[in-house]
Amino acid sequence: MNGENQQSYSSEIVLQNYLLQNIPISSAMGIQVEKASPQQIILSAPLSNNINHKKTVFGGSLHAVATLACWSLIHVNLSQLCLDDFQIVITNSEIAYLAPVASDFKAECHMIEPSLWNRFVKMLQKKGKSRLTLQAKIWQGTQLCVDYSGVFAAIEAE
Amino acid sequence: MNGENQQSYSSEIVLQNYLLQNIPISSAMGIQVEKASPQQIILSAPLSNNINHKKTVFGGSLHAVATLACWSLIHVNLSQLCLDDFQIVITNSEIAYLAPVASDFKAECHMIEPSLWNRFVKMLQKKGKSRLTLQAKIWQGTQLCVDYSGVFAAIEAE
Repeated sequence: MNGENQQSYSSEIVLQNYLLQNIPISSAMGIQVEKASPQQIILSAPLSNNINHKKTVFGGSLHAVATLACWSLIHVNLSQLCLDDFQIVITNSEIAYLAPVASDFKAECHMIEPSLWNRFVKMLQKKGKSRLTLQAKIWQGTQLCVDYSGVFAAIEAE
Repeated sequence: MNGENQQSYSSEIVLQNYLLQNIPISSAMGIQVEKASPQQIILSAPLSNNINHKKTVFGGSLHAVATLACWSLIHVNLSQLCLDDFQIVITNSEIAYLAPVASDFKAECHMIEPSLWNRFVKMLQKKGKSRLTLQAKIWQGTQLCVDYSGVFAAIEAE
């Protein structure tokens, strides 16, 4: 295992432990951190924990895992910048359920354009608070099933 | 206990059992059916099961309980009309987190105007599918904390 993989492996464990310890419902949903790099978060969850009356994944679980993927991307990036004294909260979100999810699933959130991220961090350092919009998607093969967009605020902890 | 209360009591138990049996994550979230009439659904959930890193309720749980409140209102009304052979699915939603929720909480969904509901049912009976927008709200005292809107589709079961 080279150094990069070692670091990447550790990031997943650190995030997994953070979620399990701080947000217990993520444990009940069976969330696993598949990838936790500053560029991309992938969270997976099993159908069984999140099944609904149609034997597909409950829409509330899809939304929750998408929310956590986006939240985690900001969390991982701010940690890397040693900006751990900011709290990240969700202010609003939209979600489109485009197709049912009938198996275990993964929510993916990718880093936005550097110019948008840099503006977010600059505002955070200058004003002590800042907002950012992130997207998360859930695919089944080539079918986009869930399209999520959330607005997150980072606020200096009191 | 008079007849009306007896009926109301039964409706809550029936819905509670349906949610627990069909959507197991609702059990992990500790959801209780407080009211299940055709005019109003109230679902409650404890802070402890749904707590986050800020010791307030995780946004994903707030969204999930709001979704289930709206879904349940359609479910209860279609059951009363003996239209049980329609599946109710969520197609998209928006949520605004206006203030943090720092205690046990309740999500409330009220019946919409009769003209809108009647149009929904008429279309369902004529076309075998129909859509409806419902709102759910979560209050803490007089403070509106969560404002949720979801679009639901009812589709004739195959």
